[in-house]
Formats: sequence, structure tokens, C-alpha cells
Amino acid sequence: MQLHQSSWPEVEAYLKRSRGIVIPIGSTEQHGPNGLLGTDAICPEVIAREAGEEAGFLVGPTFNVGSAQHHLGFPGSITLRPSTLIAAVNDWIDSLVRHGFTRIYFLNGHGGNIAPVNSAFAESYSAWSFDGEACPYQLKLENWFTLPGIQDLVKEMFPEGEGSHATPSEVSVTYYACPDAQKSVEMSPKLAPTGPIRDAADYRGRFPDGRIGSDPSQASPEKGARIVKAAKAALIGEVEAFFRA
Amino acid sequence: MQLHQSSWPEVEAYLKRSRGIVIPIGSTEQHGPNGLLGTDAICPEVIAREAGEEAGFLVGPTFNVGSAQHHLGFPGSITLRPSTLIAAVNDWIDSLVRHGFTRIYFLNGHGGNIAPVNSAFAESYSAWSFDGEACPYQLKLENWFTLPGIQDLVKEMFPEGEGSHATPSEVSVTYYACPDAQKSVEMSPKLAPTGPIRDAADYRGRFPDGRIGSDPSQASPEKGARIVKAAKAALIGEVEAFFRA
Amino acid sequence: MQLHQSSWPEVEAYLKRSRGIVIPIGSTEQHGPNGLLGTDAICPEVIAREAGEEAGFLVGPTFNVGSAQHHLGFPGSITLRPSTLIAAVNDWIDSLVRHGFTRIYFLNGHGGNIAPVNSAFAESYSAWSFDGEACPYQLKLENWFTLPGIQDLVKEMFPEGEGSHATPSEVSVTYYACPDAQKSVEMSPKLAPTGPIRDAADYRGRFPDGRIGSDPSQASPEKGARIVKAAKAALIGEVEAFFRA
Amino acid sequence: MQLHQSSWPEVEAYLKRSRGIVIPIGSTEQHGPNGLLGTDAICPEVIAREAGEEAGFLVGPTFNVGSAQHHLGFPGSITLRPSTLIAAVNDWIDSLVRHGFTRIYFLNGHGGNIAPVNSAFAESYSAWSFDGEACPYQLKLENWFTLPGIQDLVKEMFPEGEGSHATPSEVSVTYYACPDAQKSVEMSPKLAPTGPIRDAADYRGRFPDGRIGSDPSQASPEKGARIVKAAKAALIGEVEAFFRA
Amino acid sequence: MQLHQSSWPEVEAYLKRSRGIVIPIGSTEQHGPNGLLGTDAICPEVIAREAGEEAGFLVGPTFNVGSAQHHLGFPGSITLRPSTLIAAVNDWIDSLVRHGFTRIYFLNGHGGNIAPVNSAFAESYSAWSFDGEACPYQLKLENWFTLPGIQDLVKEMFPEGEGSHATPSEVSVTYYACPDAQKSVEMSPKLAPTGPIRDAADYRGRFPDGRIGSDPSQASPEKGARIVKAAKAALIGEVEAFFRA
Amino acid sequence: MQLHQSSWPEVEAYLKRSRGIVIPIGSTEQHGPNGLLGTDAICPEVIAREAGEEAGFLVGPTFNVGSAQHHLGFPGSITLRPSTLIAAVNDWIDSLVRHGFTRIYFLNGHGGNIAPVNSAFAESYSAWSFDGEACPYQLKLENWFTLPGIQDLVKEMFPEGEGSHATPSEVSVTYYACPDAQKSVEMSPKLAPTGPIRDAADYRGRFPDGRIGSDPSQASPEKGARIVKAAKAALIGEVEAFFRA
Repeated sequence: MQLHQSSWPEVEAYLKRSRGIVIPIGSTEQHGPNGLLGTDAICPEVIAREAGEEAGFLVGPTFNVGSAQHHLGFPGSITLRPSTLIAAVNDWIDSLVRHGFTRIYFLNGHGGNIAPVNSAFAESYSAWSFDGEACPYQLKLENWFTLPGIQDLVKEMFPEGEGSHATPSEVSVTYYACPDAQKSVEMSPKLAPTGPIRDAADYRGRFPDGRIGSDPSQASPEKGARIVKAAKAALIGEVEAFFRA
Repeated sequence: MQLHQSSWPEVEAYLKRSRGIVIPIGSTEQHGPNGLLGTDAICPEVIAREAGEEAGFLVGPTFNVGSAQHHLGFPGSITLRPSTLIAAVNDWIDSLVRHGFTRIYFLNGHGGNIAPVNSAFAESYSAWSFDGEACPYQLKLENWFTLPGIQDLVKEMFPEGEGSHATPSEVSVTYYACPDAQKSVEMSPKLAPTGPIRDAADYRGRFPDGRIGSDPSQASPEKGARIVKAAKAALIGEVEAFFRA
Repeated sequence: MQLHQSSWPEVEAYLKRSRGIVIPIGSTEQHGPNGLLGTDAICPEVIAREAGEEAGFLVGPTFNVGSAQHHLGFPGSITLRPSTLIAAVNDWIDSLVRHGFTRIYFLNGHGGNIAPVNSAFAESYSAWSFDGEACPYQLKLENWFTLPGIQDLVKEMFPEGEGSHATPSEVSVTYYACPDAQKSVEMSPKLAPTGPIRDAADYRGRFPDGRIGSDPSQASPEKGARIVKAAKAALIGEVEAFFRA
Repeated sequence: MQLHQSSWPEVEAYLKRSRGIVIPIGSTEQHGPNGLLGTDAICPEVIAREAGEEAGFLVGPTFNVGSAQHHLGFPGSITLRPSTLIAAVNDWIDSLVRHGFTRIYFLNGHGGNIAPVNSAFAESYSAWSFDGEACPYQLKLENWFTLPGIQDLVKEMFPEGEGSHATPSEVSVTYYACPDAQKSVEMSPKLAPTGPIRDAADYRGRFPDGRIGSDPSQASPEKGARIVKAAKAALIGEVEAFFRA
Repeated sequence: MQLHQSSWPEVEAYLKRSRGIVIPIGSTEQHGPNGLLGTDAICPEVIAREAGEEAGFLVGPTFNVGSAQHHLGFPGSITLRPSTLIAAVNDWIDSLVRHGFTRIYFLNGHGGNIAPVNSAFAESYSAWSFDGEACPYQLKLENWFTLPGIQDLVKEMFPEGEGSHATPSEVSVTYYACPDAQKSVEMSPKLAPTGPIRDAADYRGRFPDGRIGSDPSQASPEKGARIVKAAKAALIGEVEAFFRA
Repeated sequence: MQLHQSSWPEVEAYLKRSRGIVIPIGSTEQHGPNGLLGTDAICPEVIAREAGEEAGFLVGPTFNVGSAQHHLGFPGSITLRPSTLIAAVNDWIDSLVRHGFTRIYFLNGHGGNIAPVNSAFAESYSAWSFDGEACPYQLKLENWFTLPGIQDLVKEMFPEGEGSHATPSEVSVTYYACPDAQKSVEMSPKLAPTGPIRDAADYRGRFPDGRIGSDPSQASPEKGARIVKAAKAALIGEVEAFFRA
């Protein structure tokens, strides 16, 4: 069940049987020569949607621009400053809490979001902690790529060249989700370099085509389908446990 | 051409032939008994996408949660505080300007966004105006429903019951975009009441099912198709003029 | 009755018979070769003051610097960033609400304030909408130049050259209010150019002497008196209706 | 010369002979049973205006709502949060600096503004200090009541009952400036109590009619005239020295 | 009793006998050729610690970086923008109030903190003043160097060359607290120049070695011991009176 | 070499041989029945100080209050909201960068700081990434307890009851640093419970005496000395590598 395709009476009815919601959260940032700028938003979106359809939980709209300042050296990347992200995530939380949601699960597609989203959670809890009242809701952030079993599966599928940015696994998921957007691009070197992440100029200097340690030419829709299937099952387990907690 | 389905080299190539981009901006808020919570995001998104495909301009990700505090009385509505929206829109602008975009056209689907987005534009221009340097980019906000010819078409299609919120025209556009999400709901009274917009409690009191002055039971995918076709043509004209300006 | 010339016991007494107040809100910005920098503050101030004296309602201090970044290319213009204006208007609102005012009517003199003041209102209502409590007050923004009948009167008085900035009507009102500040200046061309408003450098390039589409050499105190008289009557009607609402 | 009654070419001409401006800054807050809510804005405004007329310097619009949270227990008082005041004062400074002003002298009428205005100055200087560039402008805050000679004069005029809030000296200045607004009110006790200033509830408890240590029944327009005359002369000396510095 | 060396049950027990706490607040900024960068934090810290040990009151952690933008021209100086300091001080206050502290006494070591800390207090009180509820706590700021008797003592000890920054008295206190950090440096001129404080570049130009009007070569640990002893006694008196108030 | 015990000429001299600095960053929060509220600040402070003395690098003042909203249920805990922490850390960074520091290494003592400090770094880099200029400095966050070899050592020293909050290892380090502050307290159960961290009320409910999974009764100054010795050596290696990078 997708919130943005539901009417308010349908959400009202849903709230009578569940107080939980899943929010896909991603980023709009370069993903190398053959990866989509929307990769980090598309991945959690498709996994959450399929899981929500199968298990009957509600999936909110995708928070599609995250914290990606280090990618600004590559055309098309869009970022929020961390302070803006914290404010925006809190507005989303406050809105959902207003309706009675008590379990808000963010399914994340972007490593750069982890710190600011966790900061946003601490900002949200702070209001209650200063007041001394018990906070009536629980917040959870989980990356789709660290869901139970996914790292093992990916390692098996891509024993070499998974890397850490513009990975064959995430590109596969987007090719599965958007088969018409597949791109065939020569990449050299085959395996991208690795290193630390700082500002945009430093990043572009270290990682000239945007990839970090990866060989995404291995990506395919079929591989994406396999990953999504596994992630969907893992997500359902996690979400159901969280909603019950 | 959609940014989130493009790679960065594709956007880099696009920037060699155009410096303009269209950003759909909407809201996630109740749209009456048979309207989708995502209506105001879906409408500009589908119109911009079809226009972008036809005319070859770039369409960015959809800014899908806007300023909708007055709808918080209805489950599923999500809002940004205006101050958050201003910060977020400025981060999007700053990111795009970083890449060399000089014409940023926001295609809007929600009346409540007009004031804060225009405030965001003034905030963006302020930096240049204080500095005294000429701002290198131009910003434009246009609602899809006030594109040339659309009001006349809609008036012709819905001589009665267009109203101002949860309108048959916008619901039609979403039914065209998401035919599986159509909902058949009895509404009473046929024509919703009208009145001013203030806070959420006041809104829910005045407009018990969320509609304002409208009869969206007239909506259909076919009508949506007709509106989208007209809006697409109008948008192409507007965007091309703006990019040339 | 003017708040800043009243004592607190007088305001306390006023609150026993009325919960409404009018706040003139303007700007400090260039108004062409013969217009005063304070035009947009002086106009609503004089109209509100005369109306308040006649009808007995309370008029607050004038919010005299607004959102005018586009005028910074002309010496003397002062602006608030929109985000600052939103914070300041909310502090004024919160102060007045603290005393029991439930109807706050902003009489505006500057087009550039419309978006940020409406954003400020949405920010103010947001607190209540998130909480779910009914907001105990109502906010209203009205421009003096769009009060009932004013546009028609102005069109009749200045069939040509009213334009949209540094207009003969607003300059007339200030000449009526501050007769000693009249200025006689040759202007060329007689009718100023028109065009869009962006940042300050762009504005100064398009509108070299600050006017937009206007011929304010037609201004006179007598014409100002006639406009103020009409606006005063219109304002009293609007305010009384709003206070009763 | 008053900025808000000048045109931009007049300010442009002024800037060729002087780079200095005086900004009256006050507050809108209760001033006891017979004092005006606008007292702290009216006092610096009238003194600056008369001094500016005599000495030919430019006087900007009055910053008329300051930091007065402790007076919110009395109807009509309006305050900015200190953080808002800091932002607003910085926007005023940035605007004036944009035009080439290099000496900005704030003539203050309210003790509660001293801390936040000085904080605003430090915030303004901080930008330059972090950058390492020399700041091209100087900021100065002076209270009209601490101008050279004023304390002595006031002590002589009101050997008893000057107190520290709603003083006979400031009420006299407003009666001189606004003779029609004089109020005759019995006050008891004759001398108001004294004590510390904290939040609004505490203030109202300690100072039931708003006065602190004062007997403003001694106020008169004639006394106000004498004070204004002395303050005007003192201000001219101070301002001329500052503009030359 | 020092908070950071106590356990929470010990603080819980303390709160049963007292609701007051002392927070040393200083700055990290240049203090001339022989003064420590931590001078303004070390002085109130050592005085508060010794007083707290003697009198049994609780001393919180030291707020060790304050508002010192004007010292940024000298290596090692660290500053908070005033707006940051206001936010941080409010977070400290809110935390302590959460535990039931009702008297929070800031012992200050730096003149530049006075305006922003008082602004922070006004910001803190504002929340209560807008709400209309009585604020349950009292805040107090006192400089160690203006405690009763200290100015006289210092004048006696340093009849010449006390000055106003990098003073022999404060350097003495730090030499007493950190005898190993004493520095012997030739300074010329013996007495540093005096003047106003603005931005960092201006400061470094006026005061080339960082001192203002002082001759800190007179400093010694023995003199520091004498000052601390006097300040400790004065502080105990002040704190006990404040906690009882 | 400690910044707060140095003079500015000493820091100036240091900058000629090194552009790196270490900032201990901690928290003020409950650490169970026998742990100090200052634990998380004291640990990185003592380790950084000893390492700095041995290896000759500069150690800045300790950032002693961090992000600890979840501990507000225990008396004495003090927290910054994450948004405040981000602003404050950026002010520290901007100050140090102003002096020419290009390597800023934060040695952290508190898990709750990781997300907001990393967010602060992203906020800092964002300014450069938006501008497109290469950022001239590098920022690094490392926890003392995850320095190379420390986890292994701790596991060996405390095979049972290390837990994750109020651990015997951190309490040992503070007992080594502040032997007079040792506390002997019965704790029951011996091993504290474990679980997730949310708001303060939830935390106090789950972890009644503040500990998570730990048995800090094993702490001793001797064990602390051993840990500090190992951490000192590890830190020197890390810092030297970072300064060279």
C-alpha cells in the first residue's frame, strides 16, 4: 500500500490495523558512468513498494534528495545541507506522528544519509527528553544493503568489484526497476580506486568517474531482480518485528 | 529526459546544449474521498515528464512534500514548515547552479507552495543582491493548472464542481497517471463547501471530507489524458521561452 | 487608536471591547526619482491610522522594513531576508496573541511582502496544526491598493502610467501624508519600462531609475487625499467584517 | 535628513558627502500607567530626527520593536526573540553596507536591547573575522539616556523618582514629541518598587503597574523639550566624532 | 563538588539539599605574549572549583569557548558566533532545568560573553513569557573580576598596567592554577595601547601583541593565589545569596 | 602541547612546523552508579594530553558537552541538540582553519556524538562543495575506544561485563585520570541489561541505573593506566599518519 496513491480515508482505515509506516530515503547523486543519478532513491523505493504490496504495510513517499555534498563535482547531483535534512526529516516525522503513527521505519539507500538521519532522530527525541515525557513513537533507520542476508548475497554475486559506490548490486536493482534506463559504458580502470570521502573537489580528484572500488559493468536487471527478492523478504521480517516492538 | 534515470555523463552532455531544467514540485496531502494523497506531486510530475520526453528538456526529481500544514487534520498528509521548505528549495537551487544550470523552472501542483517557493526565490536572490554581483541564474514558478489555456479547458470540461481543492481536473490527471489507483466513493454533498484556509483544525471543521467547492466524482483517466495533453503542449511553450530568455 | 501612543491600561481596556488589531506592514526601498524610500510603509500607516481614528480600532506599530532584496541596487533600500521576515512576523504575532488578540490584520504596502508574510502565517498556523489543537486566532494580509474599489479609483485617476512600482497613486498618498517631502523631478522616459523582477543587479539594469511602467510625475497631495479617503472607508469595512468573523 | 522621506537619488547624493547614518532603535513595551507603549522608539526617533535636521546627517527608519520579553505580561507589549533581533539587525546592516555606508550609529532607547544589539554587532563582525579580511564598516550603539551630560541633567530635573523604567525623563520626551498623547493617571505608590528583571510573570508580580523605581507623574512636554534639546546637542557631537573616526 | 567528577546518584542526592549550580563560562582566545589561550576559562573554573569545595555547592563543566571573534587574528583563538553561543547556552540551561535546578549561576571570565550570554538568558525567558507561565528558574551572570571587592583589590595590587585585556590579574590567576604554564616574555611597550574593539583585523592592527592597556609582566602565582582567595570568598557570598533568593 | 595552556606566539610557532591539531570531544552524561558524569570528556582528554606531550602535537580545549538527549532522565546529564552541536563544531573548525590548521582530528569519547559530528563535517565540507573550490583542510573523527588495538585489549581485560555504556574500561580511564573521584557502589544486577537507545524516558525505563550491558565494578586506576598507555600509543600513530596525509 503506497501512501501517495491512497486516499486519506484509506490511510485512516490502515491506522486502525497498524501504526507503522516505511519511508524510503535516498539521494540524487552521480553513480558512475552507467549508474542512474536516482539510484539511491530508486533502490529503497522499489524494495519497499514490493515488500509493502506483499506484506500489506504502508509505504510513504520517497525522500529523494539526501546528503550528498561530496558528489557535487558531478553534474546532476543534488544535496541538502545536513542541517536542512535534519529539519526536513523532523517535519516528516512530526506530520506522521500527528496522524498517530508510532513506528516510522526509514529504508535508506545512501551511506551519506546515515549520520544526518540519525542526528535527525536525536533531534526528534530531544524534544521529549527535555520535556521529560515519554516519546510515543519509535524511529528506525536501516539501509537496504545491510538488511539480513544482503551483504552475503551480494558478495556471492559479485565476488570482485562490488566496491562501495556505484556498486554492481545497486545498479542492478535500478536496472530491474527501470529497464529502459540501462546504459552500456566502457569503464577504465575496470576496478575503480578507493579512498576517503571529503569535499566535492577532493572526491572528483580521487574518483574521476565517480565510482569507488566498484565494477558496475556487471550489473543486470536479472541480478537486480534477485537482490530485490531477497531484500523484500528481509525487509518484511524487519518491518514486522519493528512494528510489533 | 529524466535526471534521476540519467547518468552524470548524460547530464554533462545535456548541459552542453541547454542550461535549463524543470523541477516538478508538489505536496503530499489529502485530496478528498477519492483523490490520492500524492495528487499535487503526481500532476506536475507526469506533465513535466511527458513534455520533457517530447521536447527534449531535462526534468529533475520531484520535490514531493510541500507546505500543507492545513491538511494535517487528515491522515497521511505530510508537510514541511515554510522555513524548512525555503531552506530545502535553496539547497536544490544551489546544487543545480553548481553544475551550470541557469534556468530553473519549478512546475508546481499545489497552491500552498506558491508563497514559500517565491520566498525561497527571494532568499536565493538575496545573496546576490547583498553582494552586488549579478545573479547568473533565473528562477521561475508556474502552476500546471495556470499554464496558458488550462483554466479555460478545465472550465469547459467541468462547468460545475471544479472547485479549488480535490478538483475533478487534478484527480483526472492522477487517474490517467495511475489508473490502478482509481477510487469510487460516494460523496455528499455533491458540491463541497467553500471558505478560507487557516490551520488544520479549522480546515477539517469547514471541509469535513477535505474537498473545497469541488465534485471530483467527475474525474476519469480519459479526462486526465486530455488535460495532460494540453498542459504538456503549454508547458513546452513556456519552458522553451524561459530557457531562451 | 494607535498602540504606540497608548498606555498598557488603555490597551487592556480596548481588549475588553475588541480582540482585533491592524498592523501596517511596508518596506523601505527606492520608489523612483520622486518617490520616498518609505513609501510602502507610509501608505498603509496613514490609511490605517485614519481608519483607526474614525472607526475606533487599534493600530499597531508599522513593520517598516520588509522583503525588498531586488531594490538593493538603489541607495537607501533596506531589506530583510525572507527567513528573517518570517521569524520577525511570528514574534509580533506571538506577542499579540499573548495579550488575547484573536484577529490580526496586516495592511500591506508592498508586493514583495506578500509571499513571505503568507509564509509567516503558514509557519504560525503550523505550530497548531502539528499539535492538533484549534488555533485561537486568525491572520489576514491585505494590500491597501487592492482594497475594494481602490484599483478602479486609481485606474480612473491615472488612466495611463499607473504602472506597478513607484506608481503615481502611492506617491500621491505619501505626498498627502508628508507634504514637505514632495519632490519635483524630470523623468525620462515618461513611462518607465516593464519586466520581471529578480535580483538587484538585474532590476537596476532593467529599470534604471527604479520605476516599473509608471509615470509618478502625476502625483499630488490632493490625489493622495482622495485615495486615502477611499481606502480608509474600504479598510473600515474590511476590518470590521474580519473582526466579526 | 530622513531616509524614509528621501528619494534614492537624494541618498546617493548624500553618500558622496558622508558615509554615516543614524538608526533609532527602540521597543514597543509598556511604560507604566501614563507612559506610551512606543516610548523607547519615540525617544531616539525624535532626538535623532532633530539632530539630523540640525547637523545634516541621515537618519534611517526606526527599528521599533526590540527585545522586551519581560514586558509581555502587560497588554500591547511586542517583542522579538533575541535571535530574531540579531538576524534583523544584521539584515539592516548588510543592506546599508551594500550602499557604501561605513559608519552605522544605532541610537537606542531601551536597556533590553543592549545585549542583543551588541550580539548582533559581534555576529556581523564575525563574518569578517573568520574570513580574515578587514571589515570596511564600524558599528556603534549608544543609548540616548547615556549621551554625555544627559544623566546629570536628568538627575537635576528629577532628584527623586527617575527610577529605571517608565521614567519621568523618557515620558517627558514622548509628551514633547506627541503632546496629544499625554495621560493623567493616579499612581500608587508614588515611587514604584525596584528589583531584578527576569521573565514576564516574575516582572508583573514585582512591578504591578509596570514602573520600576520611578515616579513618571512628574513628566511634562516642557521637561521633554529641555531633555531633547540637550540630547540633540550631545548626539550631534557624538555622531560627528564617530563619522570622522 | 564538581559535576563532571560526580555520579548521577550523587547529583540526585545534591538536588535534595540544593537546587543551585555554578557554571564557569570563559573563552579560548589570545591573552598577549605571556598569557594562556585558556585564561578566561581557567580563571572562573579555578575560582568556582575552590569555592564549591569550601561551600559545598555544585560546579558544572566549564563552557570553555565563548564569543571571541575579535581575537581571530591571533593563532589559537576559537570563537562561537553569538547565535551559536545563544543556542548552546540554552541547551545547557534546558538540560539543568530538566533535572530540577532552579538557580543557575554563570561565573564568567570574558567581557565578550556578557552580551551574548545575557541574550541567551532573554531567549530562555522568552519561551515562558510568550506562554504566560511563570518561569521556574533564575539565571545569573557574574564576572569573577567584578565580584564584590575584586576591582579594589586588583587596583591595589596593580596600580598601573591592569588594563582591560591580558591583565596581570587574570594572568596571575592562571599562573596560580597552572604554575607549569608560566611564560617569561619581554613586552614592548610596557603598557599596551587602548582603544575600541571591532573585528579581528582591526583588533590586530590596534593591539599588535594582543594586550589592551595592560602590563601582564607583573603576573605571578602568588598574586594569583591572593586574588583567587578573595574571589572565592566573594563568590561564596554571592552564590549563597542567589541560591536563597 | 596544550592549546589552552599556550600563548598565541607559541601556537604561531607550532604552526610553522605542523598544521595539525587534536580536539578531544566528549559528553557530560550519567555513567552509571560509579561512573563520572564527565567520563566521555575525561577519557579523550587524558589520552590526547598524554599523547600530545609525548609526540609534540597540539591538543585543543575539550568539547565537553555533546549529544546526549537519551541520558536526560538522570540528574547531571547535559546535552546539546544535534543542530546546536553541528553549529558549534563548525565554529570551532572555522576558527582553527582561520589560523591555518589543515588537519583537525577529533578524538571522541561518546557514541552519541558520532552521527552529529559527522553531520557537522558534511556541513563544513558543503560550503566548499557548493562553491566548487577545493577544501583546504581535512577533518577526522575517531573514538578512543576504537583506536587500533583497544577493542582487543579491553576484551582481554574485561572478558565479561564490558557492555556498551558505563563500561569498566572507560570508568577505569577516569579513575586513572581522577583517582580521588573513585566511587565504590553496589550494583545489581551485576550485568546491566541491553537494548536500543531512544528518548530519555525510554532509556531510564530500560536501564534503571544507567548502565548498558556492563559491570563497571571491575574498574580500577591501574587498569585505566594500562588502557591509556595503549590508547596513547595508538593515537600517536593515527595522528601522525593523518597529519602527513
